[in-house]
Amino acid sequence: MNTMTENCFDTLCAARFSCRSYSDRAVSDELLTAVLEDARLAPSACNRQPWRFVVVEGEEARKAVVASYDRAWFASAPLYIIMCGVPAEGWVRPDDGKNHTDIDVAIATEHLCLAAEAHGLGTCWVCNFKPEVLAEGLALPEGLVPVAILPLGYPAEGVKAPAKVRRPLDETIIRR
Amino acid sequence: MNTMTENCFDTLCAARFSCRSYSDRAVSDELLTAVLEDARLAPSACNRQPWRFVVVEGEEARKAVVASYDRAWFASAPLYIIMCGVPAEGWVRPDDGKNHTDIDVAIATEHLCLAAEAHGLGTCWVCNFKPEVLAEGLALPEGLVPVAILPLGYPAEGVKAPAKVRRPLDETIIRR
Repeated sequence: MNTMTENCFDTLCAARFSCRSYSDRAVSDELLTAVLEDARLAPSACNRQPWRFVVVEGEEARKAVVASYDRAWFASAPLYIIMCGVPAEGWVRPDDGKNHTDIDVAIATEHLCLAAEAHGLGTCWVCNFKPEVLAEGLALPEGLVPVAILPLGYPAEGVKAPAKVRRPLDETIIRR
Repeated sequence: MNTMTENCFDTLCAARFSCRSYSDRAVSDELLTAVLEDARLAPSACNRQPWRFVVVEGEEARKAVVASYDRAWFASAPLYIIMCGVPAEGWVRPDDGKNHTDIDVAIATEHLCLAAEAHGLGTCWVCNFKPEVLAEGLALPEGLVPVAILPLGYPAEGVKAPAKVRRPLDETIIRR
């Protein structure tokens, strides 16, 4: 990739933020497909792709999602994508039996978050939902485990990314 | 973000690949810092940042890494970054006690992989290592759990990204 692209991804990482206020402007099918496509291209252990993306737009289904995470800001999103793992499809490490499904779903989820930002949309990792309420309310197929809910939409007017607070790099790196 | 940036991230997702052959060209400190910085900016549950990035360049430490995943191609990388979780620092979901450390480390790891591609470097998610061999060989501080090893370097001459094989989007999406 060239220098333009370098700057582009660095800028994207700096710009992405957890959007907690959405406008009611609809997301076009074209845009929705574009961000889902970036998630689809994510890598996974042994390319198992142990994931399903549940796109929630229907009125009853939206209520079920909000019931699993009852916050006023959350209800303002025009749509939700439930990033689900399928542990039975996930890669298991021979050495210790660790199933890598959650890790793979996290990769795809972050691809979608970065894609949303790159396409002018907002989103937010939501993990503090009630998994059973969500699975039951959406009648998720057996074997699917919801890992994260991503509200997706245009940020409301005036919403700005807050300053990022992160541990300094020299306290994050260990050298060997 | 503008249209250029849109195309830029879509292109990046399509271009990223698992690089399994490296040249011996050194990675500059400046570049290394740039990709680590993109990982540092990753989001995490409640911003806990339950991660440490172990940068491995020393000869003895390199041997320890290769001992945990003994492949000829792997040994060709000029450096390694061990993406570690710190479960004691991770966010735990009140509803069911699920610790989100692995998910957070996966987000930071994929930021680093995409950053590498954006900066002209290659890398590869490696999870099929022997965790105990790695932790012991590197004398990792107590409480750190290695989640992934990322070899990092310039792709060897002639290395090309293979065609991506992924499940079609319509078999990946469920609508509600």
